[in-house]
Order: sequence, then C-alpha cells, then structure tokens
Amino acid sequence: MKVLIIGGVAGGASAATRSRRLAEDAEIILIERGPDASFANCGLPYYVGGEIVKRDKLLVVTPERLRARFNLDVRVRTSAEAIDRQSRRVRLHDLATGRVYDETYDKLILSPGAAPLRPPIPGADLPEIFTLRNLQDVDRIKERVDQGVNHAVILGAGFIGLELVENLVRRGVATTVIELQNQLLPPFDHEMTTPIAEHLRQHGVTLLLGQSAESFARAENGIAVHLQSGGTIAAQLVILGVGVRPESKLAVDAGLEVGPRGGIRVNEFLQTSDPDIYAVGDAIEVKDYVTGDATQVPLAGPANRQGRIAADHIFGRPARYRGTQGTAIVKVFDRTAALTGASEKTLRRAQRHFRKVYIHPANHAGYYPGAEAMSLKLLFDPHSGQILGAQAVGGAGVDKRIDVLAVAIQAGMTVFDLEEMELAYAPQFGSAKDPVNMAGFVAGGLLRGDHPQLDVETVLALPAAERPALIDVRTPEEFAAGSLPEAINIPVDELRAETGRLPTDRPLAVFCQVGQRGYLATRILLQKGYPAANLGGGYKTYQLFFPPLSPS
Amino acid sequence: MKVLIIGGVAGGASAATRSRRLAEDAEIILIERGPDASFANCGLPYYVGGEIVKRDKLLVVTPERLRARFNLDVRVRTSAEAIDRQSRRVRLHDLATGRVYDETYDKLILSPGAAPLRPPIPGADLPEIFTLRNLQDVDRIKERVDQGVNHAVILGAGFIGLELVENLVRRGVATTVIELQNQLLPPFDHEMTTPIAEHLRQHGVTLLLGQSAESFARAENGIAVHLQSGGTIAAQLVILGVGVRPESKLAVDAGLEVGPRGGIRVNEFLQTSDPDIYAVGDAIEVKDYVTGDATQVPLAGPANRQGRIAADHIFGRPARYRGTQGTAIVKVFDRTAALTGASEKTLRRAQRHFRKVYIHPANHAGYYPGAEAMSLKLLFDPHSGQILGAQAVGGAGVDKRIDVLAVAIQAGMTVFDLEEMELAYAPQFGSAKDPVNMAGFVAGGLLRGDHPQLDVETVLALPAAERPALIDVRTPEEFAAGSLPEAINIPVDELRAETGRLPTDRPLAVFCQVGQRGYLATRILLQKGYPAANLGGGYKTYQLFFPPLSPS
Repeated sequence: MKVLIIGGVAGGASAATRSRRLAEDAEIILIERGPDASFANCGLPYYVGGEIVKRDKLLVVTPERLRARFNLDVRVRTSAEAIDRQSRRVRLHDLATGRVYDETYDKLILSPGAAPLRPPIPGADLPEIFTLRNLQDVDRIKERVDQGVNHAVILGAGFIGLELVENLVRRGVATTVIELQNQLLPPFDHEMTTPIAEHLRQHGVTLLLGQSAESFARAENGIAVHLQSGGTIAAQLVILGVGVRPESKLAVDAGLEVGPRGGIRVNEFLQTSDPDIYAVGDAIEVKDYVTGDATQVPLAGPANRQGRIAADHIFGRPARYRGTQGTAIVKVFDRTAALTGASEKTLRRAQRHFRKVYIHPANHAGYYPGAEAMSLKLLFDPHSGQILGAQAVGGAGVDKRIDVLAVAIQAGMTVFDLEEMELAYAPQFGSAKDPVNMAGFVAGGLLRGDHPQLDVETVLALPAAERPALIDVRTPEEFAAGSLPEAINIPVDELRAETGRLPTDRPLAVFCQVGQRGYLATRILLQKGYPAANLGGGYKTYQLFFPPLSPS
Repeated sequence: MKVLIIGGVAGGASAATRSRRLAEDAEIILIERGPDASFANCGLPYYVGGEIVKRDKLLVVTPERLRARFNLDVRVRTSAEAIDRQSRRVRLHDLATGRVYDETYDKLILSPGAAPLRPPIPGADLPEIFTLRNLQDVDRIKERVDQGVNHAVILGAGFIGLELVENLVRRGVATTVIELQNQLLPPFDHEMTTPIAEHLRQHGVTLLLGQSAESFARAENGIAVHLQSGGTIAAQLVILGVGVRPESKLAVDAGLEVGPRGGIRVNEFLQTSDPDIYAVGDAIEVKDYVTGDATQVPLAGPANRQGRIAADHIFGRPARYRGTQGTAIVKVFDRTAALTGASEKTLRRAQRHFRKVYIHPANHAGYYPGAEAMSLKLLFDPHSGQILGAQAVGGAGVDKRIDVLAVAIQAGMTVFDLEEMELAYAPQFGSAKDPVNMAGFVAGGLLRGDHPQLDVETVLALPAAERPALIDVRTPEEFAAGSLPEAINIPVDELRAETGRLPTDRPLAVFCQVGQRGYLATRILLQKGYPAANLGGGYKTYQLFFPPLSPS
C-alpha cells in the first residue's frame, strides 16, 4: 500500500503517523509546501506576545523525527500541483531545486488546510499587511513588533484576531480591532460576547464593531487605514484575521466535488467523490453534529481526528467521522469564552425550535476564596429537552463546564440528565449544585412548566402597552443601583405580604439579579393565582443584552 | 400537606426549600439539633487553616433567611427523639428549654446525616480528642490550634483527614497521619495515591500507613498516642477521621429497614420501608450506579439531589434517584486527586471483568507555559468497552477530566466514544488530543487488539522464569536514569534496525516512559512477527506501583 499525503500540520501528520502504526510495511509519503512538517498553529499568537519564548516549542514534530521514528518519507518545501486521478499520480514541485516530478499513490489524503482571506479592499494586498497562518508569518509579525510598533490594527475579531490583540497589548502596542459584524467572536451569540468586549476595553483596546476598512494605503510611518464610516487610523502594523478559505484548488482542478463555500465534500469515511482520495482538516466540508447541515469548521481537534479516521479506513478499520460540534474556546486576558454545539443564531437560521436559559453562577463554592463569576447559556429542544448548544464566558472553570456539556451533546442527553449529573465537588472546584446542575434545574423547571420564563430582550422589544409589568424582587439597595426601565421593587422576602402592591392590569414579569429569587417569586405568585413569569437570568442577562455604556 | 424534616445541612435544607417552591401553601417544618440550619461542611478544614477567614462564610443559609424567604418553620437546637408511625408523630426535644412535645406530619423526611466514628481504642473518648462534623467542632479545633500546637496526629487518611493535614501544616503544625490501610484515600486504588503520599512527605508530613493507634492517654503536655507497632507520639492535638456511621437510630427504633452497615434503606423515590417517611443524605444506603450494589456514600452533591427528589416525589413530580457514582475530589497542597465510578478494587470485590489503562498526559499543550502533569487511570468493560470508573491525580485540569468521565459513565458511554469527544482546545486549556481522547485511543486500541497490553504489577509478580523479556524503548539517557529490573534498552527509533538484539526465547514486554513509544514499538514488533505487548502507562505507571523510597 502506498499512501501519499498532501499537507502536514494537524490532519496530515495525524494521518501519516496513524498509517504507520497500522501498517509497518506501507509506503507513506508526506508532502508539505512549507519548511515544517507540523507546527502548533494555535500557539502562534503567544510567540508574538512572548508568552512562548522559544520558537522551537512551536514545532510539534520535525521531519527528522518523523523519518526516524515513523519511517515516513517526508518531503518539505514541496508543492502539489495537480492530481491525475486516472493514473493515480500527483505532480509535485520541489520548491528548493525547482524539480517537477510525478509521484504515484494507491490512496491519496488531502490535508491542504485553509488560507487566510485577503478581503477585496483596496490596499489589502500590500506586503506590509500581514496574515497569520504559519511560522513564517509569525516570524514576520514578530520582527515588525520587535522593530517598534505604536499602533496596530487587527481586522476581524475572531479567535485568532483576539488572541493577537492580547499579545500585542502585552507587548505595549496600542491596538484597534475593526469588525464588520456588530459583535466580537462571530460563532457566539451576540450577548455572550459582551463581557469580552468590556474586558478588552478595560485593557485599553479600541473596538470598532459594525465597521469596516474602506482602503489601506502606505503612509509616512506605516499604513493609513481608511474607515468606511470616515476617519483614518495610522498604524505601523495591520493584520487581517477575517477568516479562511479552504485550499481546495487542487481538489477542484481534479474534478472532486466541493461545497458552495469551497470545502471539499467527503463522506463519513472522509472519502472525497473519488474513493481513493481522502480529505481532512480545514479544507473539507463537515456535517454539523447538531443541525446535520454541511458546514466548515477550521479547528485542530477535528482535523486530528479526521486524519486518524482516514488512515483507519484506508487500512480496513471500522471508523466513521460523526460530524463536528464546533467546540471551541478562547482566552482573552483574564476572561475565557467557550462554546459547543449550535448557537441561537444557528438554530434560528436552521428554523429549529429551541428554548434557552441563562445562569450566572460562580465557578466554585462562594465560601471558599477566589470564586470567579461566569455566565452560561444553554440551548435545548422545547419538547424532548435534548441539549442543542451551550456558551459560557467568565473566569476559571468555563472550560470545564463547556467540556461537560460537549459530552452531554455527544451523548444526546437532555436537560433532565444535567439535573442528575454527579460532578466532582470540593470547594476549590465547584459547588454541591454545580453550574451544570443549576442549568439543568432551570431548564428542566421551565420544560415541566414549574417556571414560566420570558426572555428579557423579547420583553423589552414589545411596545410599552403590551409589555408585562416588571417586578424587581431584589433588595432596595440593588434596585437603587440600577434596574430595568419602569420596574417596581418588591423584595422577594416581602412579596407574600405585599401582593397588594402588584399591578393587576397586566401579566407580571419578575426578575432578580441572576434568576434564582425571581424563580421563587414566580412560584409564589403563580400559586397565589397571579399570571407571572420569570425573566430568565435576571438583571445580569439584561446587562449582557444592554450593557452600560463603557467609558472608553 | 404538612412536611416535617429532621436535619438541615445539605439534604434537609434542599428538601425544605424545594418543597416550598413546589407548594406555597404547605406547612414545612425543619428540625435541626444544632444551632445552624445549614452550613458548609466541606469548608470546615479551611477555616482551621485560615484559608477561609470569616466564620460567617460557612453559614450557607441562616434560620432567619429560611423563615423570611421560604416561609419555613425552622426549629434549631431541637432534637427528634422518636417516631410514632401509627399516629404519624415525632417526639421533639427543645434543647434550649427542655420542653418535649409531639409534632404531626403527613410526610416525614429524615436527613440525620452521619456521625464521625470513635474507634474502640482505649482513650479514644477523651474529650481532648476531636472529631470534625460541624461548626462547633471546628470552633474547638481552631481554638486548640490558636492556643499553640507543636504536633498533631490525624487518625485516618480519608478526604477530610488530608484536608485537615494541609490546613494544620499551613498553621505551622508538625503533623503525623496514622492510617490502618496501607494507602491514603481508601476510595482510590492504591497506586493512584502514590503521588499524593509523596507530595505530603515533601511538605514534611509524617505518614504512618498500615499502622494503627493502640491507645491514647493524657500526657503532660497533651496526648500520648501509643502505636500498635510500638512507639509513642506526643501530640497536643488529635483528630479522628476514620469514617462516619449513619445516624439511623431514630429510623431503626421506628422499625424502618436499614442495611448491614446501618444505612437507612430507601427506594428510588427515597421512600423508606414506610412510604410516608423519606430519608436522604449520609444516613441512607444508595445504589452504586456502576455495580448496582448497595453502598453508603457520604457526599454533599448526592445529598442535595436526594433532598430535592424526595420533595419532588412528595409533591407529585416524576423524579427518581438513579444511584450514586461516588464522584469525589480532594486537593492536597498543590495536588488534586479525583475519581468517579468504580475503582479496580471495587470491581474485583464485585467479581466484575474489566480492563484498565493508564496515561500520564499534561493538562494542556506542552508548547504553552505552565503545563502540569497528571496520571489518569481508566477502567472499562472488556467486551463492550463501557466505562466503569476513572481516577486521576495531578495538578490543574484533573477536576475537568474526571467530570467529563463522570458524564460519560452517566451516559453509558464506551471508550470508543472517548476517542470521538470534541472538547474545548486552546493551548491554555487542553490539547488537540485531550487526555480524555488519549485514554480512549489507548483503551480502544487495546480492545480492538491493535495494542496488546500487560499490567506492570502483574508482570513483575511473575516468577522470573515466566516473565517476558522487558524491552525499554526509551533513550539511553532515560534508561540510565532508572529502568525496570533486567530491562534491555533498544530505543524505538533504532528498533527496526536492531531487532537482532531482541531475545527470542520469551515473549517481549515493551515499555517507554508513558506508553506512547511503547505502543509504536509494540506495533512494529507485532507486524514483524514478534510476540510483543506494551506495558501500559510505561515507566511512570511502574513508579506508581513501586515508588522510589522517599528520603523522609
């Protein structure tokens, strides 16, 4: 068996080493255009910032190691130019010597990755405007920062963009982020990004959301970024982080099927429309595990698994790729944002019915020092309670809860299963009722009808005449510090005695700080015969949707 | 409906507040023998050590709050003396006034908890010898430490015992631990506690494992602890942490069924043998979620859930308690140990077939600074691959992996599902192949037969003549720093060329540092026709079973 693999990094390197483990006698050739067979692309921003000091740390595995340990034929600085499917040959181009030659294969694995987009903006192709994909890119960016940069502009507020922002600020560079959408981190729902935006502003970052660059031009000391909204930003460093495009040209030219956004089409075995050609990693179209729709998710974890599964299938193992949940996480200074499964906007796009709850728990027992707050959003099926997606933002422990919920989604679990979860509790790690349990209690109560809930953004979007009366059941002190427009304050501890103060001409929407007192108040009022519902997640959820204006 | 609840803390308080949420008009009476309706018993050791400074922090909820917010009839300093099931009455004793009176109930919930054991050792009942259950106990212990303690003895190396040790050392107290078993933390398998024992010794703690106290006696300056092995320890503070016994006397006297170890018998709705009487918390016998056997698991999380479920059932909700997984965690200085599901010794006791793997990954990507090592043991069914239990010990990230595996056990997932898990990866949080995925790869490979594995403790227990040849495939430098007895060193990168050096008279047991190079070496050798197997978890697992002698 002769396996030819085009592209190293995550998917290709995994396919190569897995192939060798399965088949000691196979001929395995790994072709990589760059000089490095595999590198830690998720670590690149931290080398710019100096968090990762040694460049060598970013080399996951050297070509020498792959040769010695895995007996692979590794050819770096080699480009694949064309596939001849009929004769099962790939035209290769040795970039060092210029030699062009053909290599045959029994099975071909394409792992070409995805290239950073350069948007069609005048000047976007200036060589001083950087993108970040590999070690050579990061060398150039780091060199530029080392030379001295006062002001940097990052176009695009995705994961890599924000990681770059943090690392530039760490280097003392004043940084502006320009993002076309009116939110950071587009895979998240808008409101869940509010704490990250605030945190970035607190670190002196200028966020221009819902804005775009009209053109870039060379200026005296760097680049002038002209905004579509008018105005110009002078920057010594501009990095484009506006997304990636699958490098599927080789596949397309060979007549392999691709999706509407350029992703190579594969079946569950990672075979393309030619069963002797597999494709893995950022270049392929995958199935969304929750919605079942085709999507493109450039993530390292799935790429690794796909490489492994392609090798398994080639060597006769029963392995299938089950789709991608889109589990992802980003740390921005001291805040973490993570998600798994479908977002609310994905579900709306897919016209899928859902319900949602928000909770705002601490990561561990409040009585133990150092508890950090988080906000957790859970999306679930309104009938079965099946978990469809989750997002969390906060400090420590966000990663753990999203991982737990990622497994729950994989297992097809419901919100009722979350109520029963038995997670590890000691005061440093969680609470006897973990945030995941709490999310289950709130969602389960909602589905059982114990706990009617209204969404604050929906309520506030209603015309005043149709709006329920807003009852703030927090303390007078909390009420005085800020409440919802036109809310009436009746603390929950006084509610039983003070029902006479409740409006009787409208339904009641009760709320507290995070939803818990509001839940009790709702239960009291419902049982006393009042048409009441709880505003899910309370004042803190309101603040996610309607953040106080930042000073910056 | 009149609900009478005996005992507050976790299960009783949860039952009371849940009952109120479900039934605004119910009469709900909460009886508590102590002065506090509910307190954070898992936080008590940290108040001794000063990590938790304010005593108030340990009060989860005051009687006043329960009255005002939940309209509960809370009676603290009140003891329940007898149940008259016929007339549905409980005899109560107001400890403050001495008044004895009867209270009727429609439904009774028993949440009496479990009392620390005082072992039948002469002198164990001296008033200067403490146990730790409630705030009054911790006040006494703290007062004693504040007075000045040079040397403390903790009898019992369970969770609370070790938490106390850490906090005493933090207070500058030289501490000795005496444990009857030959390991710390009895719920864990022996070898998984090795890193905790080493860590405690590094912090100057004296561990006397497999030893016991013969007697305690008053001495000039405190207590003389006489050991069964001979010798005496002079201590100014002795705390007993040898386990708890369900406080089931009230139930037994009322003729309710109890198990052989005194736990109150309940059905899945938490009803005792009298359907009008429920029992929850540390006093009950529960079903082990994995083995199905009856067990007693004194943990806060299950107690809270049981309280909630009992209330649900009383008020007509469909809720069932599904059993306890025994998920637990403890932090000891900078190390964490956690487990979920069945241990190896539990499975052996239950005569259940199983396989196991060990891995020794870092908590996050090695290229990002601050990665911490952990050891993870996974137990699973040899046929279906269903996950039966997991244990981990290490630094950061141990809690997350055990929580993920706890959910996997709850969902009935297999090791093959672990291979597919899509967990949140950024370099601060994990790896593209998370430790949980890695455990799945190793276990899955083992079950698919790709990867025959031998357990190091089994191999070394064989007579020399029956032992396979031990092949150390690490580097010469690693080999020189320490290897298994009589191992031959052939580095994996040279193995293909050096097969001539392999013994041919015996099967081969290959090993490396953590198992990964050993796996590749096994694959190479098997495919070349050698009878090879990998020593699971490599040299690091060997060191768990056979730790180098500590200097202390």
